[in-house]
Amino acid sequence: MRMVDLILKKRGGQVLTAEEIQQFIHGYTEGAIPDYQASALLMAIYFKGMSEQECADLTMAMVQSGETIDLSEIKGVKVDKHSTGGVGDTTTLILGPLVASVGVPVAKMSGRGLGHTGGTIDKLEAIKGFHVELEKEAFIQIVNENKIAVVGQSGNLTPADKKIYALRDVTGTVDSIPLIASSIMSKKIAAGADAICLDVKTGAGAFMKTVEEAQQLAKTMVQIGNHVGRKTMAVISDMSQPLGNAIGNALEVNEAIDTLRGNGPKDLTELCLTLGSHMVYMAGKAETIDSAREKLETAIKDGSAITTFKRFIESQGGDGTVVDDLSKLPQAAYVIEFSAEEDGYISELIANQIGEAAMLLGAGRTKLDDTIDLAAGLVLHKKIGDQVQPGDVLVSIHSNRENVDDVKEKLKASIRISKQKQAAPPLVYKEIL
Amino acid sequence: MRMVDLILKKRGGQVLTAEEIQQFIHGYTEGAIPDYQASALLMAIYFKGMSEQECADLTMAMVQSGETIDLSEIKGVKVDKHSTGGVGDTTTLILGPLVASVGVPVAKMSGRGLGHTGGTIDKLEAIKGFHVELEKEAFIQIVNENKIAVVGQSGNLTPADKKIYALRDVTGTVDSIPLIASSIMSKKIAAGADAICLDVKTGAGAFMKTVEEAQQLAKTMVQIGNHVGRKTMAVISDMSQPLGNAIGNALEVNEAIDTLRGNGPKDLTELCLTLGSHMVYMAGKAETIDSAREKLETAIKDGSAITTFKRFIESQGGDGTVVDDLSKLPQAAYVIEFSAEEDGYISELIANQIGEAAMLLGAGRTKLDDTIDLAAGLVLHKKIGDQVQPGDVLVSIHSNRENVDDVKEKLKASIRISKQKQAAPPLVYKEIL
Repeated sequence: MRMVDLILKKRGGQVLTAEEIQQFIHGYTEGAIPDYQASALLMAIYFKGMSEQECADLTMAMVQSGETIDLSEIKGVKVDKHSTGGVGDTTTLILGPLVASVGVPVAKMSGRGLGHTGGTIDKLEAIKGFHVELEKEAFIQIVNENKIAVVGQSGNLTPADKKIYALRDVTGTVDSIPLIASSIMSKKIAAGADAICLDVKTGAGAFMKTVEEAQQLAKTMVQIGNHVGRKTMAVISDMSQPLGNAIGNALEVNEAIDTLRGNGPKDLTELCLTLGSHMVYMAGKAETIDSAREKLETAIKDGSAITTFKRFIESQGGDGTVVDDLSKLPQAAYVIEFSAEEDGYISELIANQIGEAAMLLGAGRTKLDDTIDLAAGLVLHKKIGDQVQPGDVLVSIHSNRENVDDVKEKLKASIRISKQKQAAPPLVYKEIL
Repeated sequence: MRMVDLILKKRGGQVLTAEEIQQFIHGYTEGAIPDYQASALLMAIYFKGMSEQECADLTMAMVQSGETIDLSEIKGVKVDKHSTGGVGDTTTLILGPLVASVGVPVAKMSGRGLGHTGGTIDKLEAIKGFHVELEKEAFIQIVNENKIAVVGQSGNLTPADKKIYALRDVTGTVDSIPLIASSIMSKKIAAGADAICLDVKTGAGAFMKTVEEAQQLAKTMVQIGNHVGRKTMAVISDMSQPLGNAIGNALEVNEAIDTLRGNGPKDLTELCLTLGSHMVYMAGKAETIDSAREKLETAIKDGSAITTFKRFIESQGGDGTVVDDLSKLPQAAYVIEFSAEEDGYISELIANQIGEAAMLLGAGRTKLDDTIDLAAGLVLHKKIGDQVQPGDVLVSIHSNRENVDDVKEKLKASIRISKQKQAAPPLVYKEIL
């Protein structure tokens, strides 16, 4: 079929066959199909959508466009977790060691990427000596022994997705549920996941602004997973305010350690237990979700969670003593308080704007070659619903520069205090199985 | 505004400003905006449409993308006629001399193009010596003296339209009314038209298959014209069967001469009188449409129409005696009859398929460098509604090759005979002012 006829078919709302989708993905990855035809098709997909079958076919075509990781030498069910991204999302740092501590193999491939803070690898590199340069054999051996290892992204995984994503970014076709869902799922499948646990964020700090949108994306991904033989579930969680209290690389490692010891913020702990119990259940390490949760709670209480974290850090060259001496993490030169000027209740804590404030401090990247300030970031002392008095510290600004007026300005605009009592937003809106 | 934001704005169904449309057209023509962003915008326009104001802004932006022809030295109102294209459409050859004979200046810029037959220039070149290589001064002088001249397309008119059309062709965005309408109107305006008379075809042989689609296109073009200060009207005419009887270059010249003498096919004559009377009225050469029509009928009867044609041919180097001796036109080596095998009434004469039969004989072009056989073509002896007996000649095949089995096969598939009496289709469905 000529590419123009394929565009017309989708434009007319018809369902593309697996062969047609493969033809597009293969031709586009190879360069035989030009960008201008691909972008016309993507815009037609934006308007006309894709069926469950088409989404699954698109996902698998993107998986097949490049290399795939074979994790079959790792014993057990490899459950991967994916978050659609938010502000102060420390869950990956916590969930890995937490579920590993009850026997779930965690073979994580992670990246750096752009955002308000660095990626998982950037955060872990706040620990002295930690590195992710592992040969495949070493990686597999460590997972089999310790149940957890993190390796940097290597190999040419889903080149079609990379090329299509870059095109979507400049052609107004980013926010199409079938395209987002197949992009995420293809990466997880190519990275060798047997089962996938998805954390779909909703609210100001998330890509999906409403619960309905988040639910549609979650459903589409779960359908794709089930269609292609990967057990998949999704949690829809709140990102109207940042998750946990820390936003910044070393600060989040600190928070992860606190949480693995049982001293973490309530919302972050709860979300980790929710996601973690599904991961344990999907990995076949518990009979029910409830018993999975009990195992995780025990692992935190009896110290096996933090011990697993320490062993994980050490197995990849890091200084494990950091778990007992948090001052070994990079420290900012200044810790400046940002305080309330009026009394009332926190009614808004706009996640994306707080994320931008952290970026002003150098905690994240806008371009891939930006250098990250690992020590910089924010620690929230109040969350939505909390009562405040004038002078109460709302946020500690961890900074390597003395003047943070711009950051304070940003914080001022992103935090609202109301005279009326406010309820905290729900943490988990829905679970989609 | 960034191009991606402009795409998103249109994708969301918002109205683009004149500045935004100019930015797109200017940037795309210059090469600053890449094809892949243009095609995404075009697909968004396909789905979301454009307002009357946007269509007018797009048209004028395309006019301004290149050179424009200044016809101000020609006295009188320059009325241009445009047909959306069909099979056996000889109207331009007739209308030019016809309206010129009553004093309407016809300064026609014409092309060759692709199709079942050649363009107007190809047809006229069937007359020995006729050429269209005129300097601008000579062109204007001839129109001022004779009221009619035809010149080949020159200059860089509407380069934006050319570039956008080529992109639409390969990205499934051809059949968008705002894009078709602005493309046609921009070319007419750039070529210097003061007023525009549109013949929008509908039916199997036309791009617009239904009267409703044709009407929407016609309305959009009339709105654009009025918006940008060019008096514009449209006729919606039938193209379910070919117009007139001749399909082929020399054959159509022959038919045009017959019609200008008052001996043309009824449908072709009627459509020329309808379009022509609007042109005469728009040019201010008659008080009413009816009196304009009377003038044209008189011009045919008293010979001034054919005399104008002869003078026109001679002023551009052609052999004017052809009007008195049609055998001076190129003649095909063979004239082969295609006859009815059953009795009944012609119920279908599928225009596009008959056009394809003419192409098989070499009457038209599929590629710009194809050579046209000026003598080849078809002459229909029966039209829809006519009664036929077995053995009646339906079509004369004018061919320079002896074996025309392929052409006969095509004709067989495109002509249907029914036992029931059939009405001829209406010739003019609507006039849109």
